Amino acid sequence: MKPDLKLTLVSLATGVLGFATTVVSAQDPLPSWNDGPAKQAILEFVKATTTQGGPQFVSPEERIATFDQDGTLWVEHPMYTQVMYCLEKVPALVKAKPELANVAPFNTVLELLHGDRAAMEKLTLPDIEKIAIATLTGMSVETFQAEVKQWLAEAKHPRWKKPYTELTYLPMHEVLKYLRANGYKTYIVTGGGQDFVREYAEETYGIPPEDIVGTAGETKYGYDKSGKPFLTKEPKLILNDNYAGKPEGIHLMIGRQPYAAFGNSTGDRQMLEYTKAGGGARLAMIVLHDDATREYAYGPAEGLPDTKVGTFTRALYDEAKKNGWTVISMKKDWKQIFAFEK
Amino acid sequence: MKPDLKLTLVSLATGVLGFATTVVSAQDPLPSWNDGPAKQAILEFVKATTTQGGPQFVSPEERIATFDQDGTLWVEHPMYTQVMYCLEKVPALVKAKPELANVAPFNTVLELLHGDRAAMEKLTLPDIEKIAIATLTGMSVETFQAEVKQWLAEAKHPRWKKPYTELTYLPMHEVLKYLRANGYKTYIVTGGGQDFVREYAEETYGIPPEDIVGTAGETKYGYDKSGKPFLTKEPKLILNDNYAGKPEGIHLMIGRQPYAAFGNSTGDRQMLEYTKAGGGARLAMIVLHDDATREYAYGPAEGLPDTKVGTFTRALYDEAKKNGWTVISMKKDWKQIFAFEK
Repeated sequence: MKPDLKLTLVSLATGVLGFATTVVSAQDPLPSWNDGPAKQAILEFVKATTTQGGPQFVSPEERIATFDQDGTLWVEHPMYTQVMYCLEKVPALVKAKPELANVAPFNTVLELLHGDRAAMEKLTLPDIEKIAIATLTGMSVETFQAEVKQWLAEAKHPRWKKPYTELTYLPMHEVLKYLRANGYKTYIVTGGGQDFVREYAEETYGIPPEDIVGTAGETKYGYDKSGKPFLTKEPKLILNDNYAGKPEGIHLMIGRQPYAAFGNSTGDRQMLEYTKAGGGARLAMIVLHDDATREYAYGPAEGLPDTKVGTFTRALYDEAKKNGWTVISMKKDWKQIFAFEK
Repeated sequence: MKPDLKLTLVSLATGVLGFATTVVSAQDPLPSWNDGPAKQAILEFVKATTTQGGPQFVSPEERIATFDQDGTLWVEHPMYTQVMYCLEKVPALVKAKPELANVAPFNTVLELLHGDRAAMEKLTLPDIEKIAIATLTGMSVETFQAEVKQWLAEAKHPRWKKPYTELTYLPMHEVLKYLRANGYKTYIVTGGGQDFVREYAEETYGIPPEDIVGTAGETKYGYDKSGKPFLTKEPKLILNDNYAGKPEGIHLMIGRQPYAAFGNSTGDRQMLEYTKAGGGARLAMIVLHDDATREYAYGPAEGLPDTKVGTFTRALYDEAKKNGWTVISMKKDWKQIFAFEK
């Protein structure tokens, strides 16, 4: 509080009213949010759970907040970033194993990457799984980490032509920082790959590897020729961190019920339910992508276009209203979406 | 540094030499350790990895230290505490399911608890697994947590007649605190059950639930009659956090290679190897139980009696010497073992 007080005194002393105004707006922890029920819900939750002696006070060690990533912290359309990673790794895979060049689904991906967008329609979910196993497993943890880092440095989102890590939502960055400033530990709980997200989450969101809960496969301990131990990524799933897998993953990796949870799709439903089921003040928020101009519009809730990527159904919308979850309208609640916008 | 300086000035001003001596010993972060190579290794490791600008400096976010629990942080003889929990839960289990009273291995456990110590010999590893599944799974997470808390409050160790949570090693408490004071995150990485250890680790060791890596089973998300969600503990293993499972578990739950690791048996071998395999200064320490008078003596390393509970083989001892792990001799290195001793 001291720096603010000092600034206020300086502004009073010099009589510069404009300066005092700057001080006031610098105190708003959520400047990219428009005033409204969503912003209000966040501010009230933090106040209630951090007011010492208050009826809803939460002790600091219990302050856990969980965030879905795709569609909640960053853009997930037209396709999840990690699926883009898997597709774009296929040429290198085919170079290493030329026998795959004429084998489905790898040949379909090569057509797709050569500009045949209709090829995307041919890819089924089992195809994507096959591509994921081929590009995410069978190498050492270190090799995978290096490949992800390199891809992230080079890859660009097709619409904004910017690195994917710049396509994160400024209002959610503010929420992460605001919660942490109030003693909350912020976790990512994502359907995406835990090892994938760990490669950039610390730099991008300020969330360290140990606070990433995600879809995870087994690793296998072994030794190289010199006897040095290393871990190999295996094609066997330990945790599918979607739907019921989210609360199950939260218990496995964190072991506490969150006080706040943020999501945007049917994959987040059980995490939001689980969070709200705890006693005291609990915050459950769900992002509705209703801004086709600045980002994307999809539901099918609220009559928005249907999608297979980040589906927000009408039933989910009804459950949100019934259970006291707060729907965040991207269009109405977010003053600014990306940090790079002016 | 300020309080120490103040005390030093006071002692100089008053000329009380004895007081100054107290100040010096209060500065020793490891007062329960005798001077020797083990204590020295800890002090040198912390100095090397926290000296800014030094060649082995480790940035604070990378400072991860992992501790085995049974035999490393607390007593594991004559039997692992969690196995005692499982055995002592059998009467309540049989009361709820009377048909088990005459079925092996439950009848054997009842004989054992009624004082027939020879019955212990009849219990095989598959028996113990059967008892573990019956007493650790099939109930909600909340029910299990309440049962563990109640047992811990009542159960006593057969030798010291004290609660198990008092049978923790004072020298290791000092290491935990010393590492944390130097920016290290301290994790338990245990072959014991993750959910079991989580129930007391925060109070006992200052290690919160989210920093416990242990043997873990699946949970299953569901709803009670009122529609409230809860998790049920399932009899399906996700992680066997022993041997190679320790580095695999560290990768799954933490995602960083530790800079320091502490163990005491063959189950810790791969964790210690994995830790030492990283670059820069890495600390690997292994406790040798060679003090039959104050605690227990078992190996079979160094000609100590053989055991199935916390085996420290001759091969492990050789690997420790070869790879630069530091062996902690309980007898020589620990001035005091338990906090309750004078």
